[in-house]
Amino acid sequence: MPLDDRPVLVGGPVLVVGAGLIGASVGMALTRAGVPTHICDVDPDIAHVAAVRGAGSDLPLDGQPGLVVVATPPDHLADAVARALQDFPAAVVTDVGSVKGAPLAGLEARRVPLARYVGGHPMAGSERSGPFASSADLFDGRTWAVVGRADCDPGAVRCVEDLARVCGANVVRMTTDEHDLAVARVSHLPHLMAALTAGQLAAAPPEHLALSGQGVRDVTRIAAGDPALWQQIIVANAEALTGLLTG
Amino acid sequence: MPLDDRPVLVGGPVLVVGAGLIGASVGMALTRAGVPTHICDVDPDIAHVAAVRGAGSDLPLDGQPGLVVVATPPDHLADAVARALQDFPAAVVTDVGSVKGAPLAGLEARRVPLARYVGGHPMAGSERSGPFASSADLFDGRTWAVVGRADCDPGAVRCVEDLARVCGANVVRMTTDEHDLAVARVSHLPHLMAALTAGQLAAAPPEHLALSGQGVRDVTRIAAGDPALWQQIIVANAEALTGLLTG
Repeated sequence: MPLDDRPVLVGGPVLVVGAGLIGASVGMALTRAGVPTHICDVDPDIAHVAAVRGAGSDLPLDGQPGLVVVATPPDHLADAVARALQDFPAAVVTDVGSVKGAPLAGLEARRVPLARYVGGHPMAGSERSGPFASSADLFDGRTWAVVGRADCDPGAVRCVEDLARVCGANVVRMTTDEHDLAVARVSHLPHLMAALTAGQLAAAPPEHLALSGQGVRDVTRIAAGDPALWQQIIVANAEALTGLLTG
Repeated sequence: MPLDDRPVLVGGPVLVVGAGLIGASVGMALTRAGVPTHICDVDPDIAHVAAVRGAGSDLPLDGQPGLVVVATPPDHLADAVARALQDFPAAVVTDVGSVKGAPLAGLEARRVPLARYVGGHPMAGSERSGPFASSADLFDGRTWAVVGRADCDPGAVRCVEDLARVCGANVVRMTTDEHDLAVARVSHLPHLMAALTAGQLAAAPPEHLALSGQGVRDVTRIAAGDPALWQQIIVANAEALTGLLTG
């Protein structure tokens, strides 16, 4: 890429908050692109694993980040985004959460000014979790939903779009409601179906499972994902999901 | 394999009735093993495609088969098995149908002597159908359920077990009811779930589908199977399926 087209990511290093599969993979993709990156986690050992795998430095940030990427579990998202907006008053703040409406409502309830917050959601993941499963190419060629709002700073939206592109992804812009309905359809409902199908198999005697083929493996693979994480996702997007299930 | 252990398949060539994905693949696997095989179909063009692909000869059988493998759609299974038992009074007759109870009830209603009929079900397939999708190695390493009954000739059961092994599969013996409950769990219910999930996607606008990832592809792949075939399977195994869905 010519130097002039190189994305700026606002200026200053990127801070990734949360060193699980997605956070560590964002750190690795940014590091691969030569972007100075720091990564932290409530568990410093997890942050250290991510740092050793190439997701950035786990040393405390010296100065101000230009961009903060919040990659915590859904239930902690609103708190972590609000804290980042307060702690780093010049930074753009984004997240990688699977649901956009519920955390936004949580932020609005906290009465935090939100012009510097732009939601994001890379459509990539794995049934495995944690920094050991992370990869610098997790987002290559994938879609990254950038969920701006009328009250967003346009420069903040461009910054988050740059982040997605630097990580190798293709940007799709959506509204909050559009995003949550779309992922209910293409991700959360399929996951629920896979979990229900796998649940039926859990009760089966071993001689029945001897008849299993590739079909049931395909249908149930994603049911192996972290149940605690998926419970938070399903609850956070309950409204859109209920609409699909009853509509 | 030493000559003495070579399976006999009762003696005489094998006749495969029905040249779709499974019938043509059985013909190809038998031909690969050097077993003289004939294949026929209500549509002679389909039988000819299978023959050209190596599934045996589509010329009329000169003499009596030792074994008849019925590979018709489920709704025609009882008729085709009954006809084979009548037309070839010395042959063992098996089938490759996905459900065992309903066709057996159909045969009992026809008051045909059933000692020479042993049900079979190779656990292999594809979301593609027809002889163009067939393969000599479709059954290699897969499970082949052999569903004998108390009224079966023991030699007929051994013959069908030989068929499964010659085709590269591992034999699992089951009763009719056991088989139908097992496949309801590991195959028919997962297919229903995949079809319902895919149905939700059919109504989605294209911009929602842009967020699709590998998960939804996995969960919905088998929903691409022939809907007419699957409708027959689901209806034929409705009792076991209903038990799982309401239990």
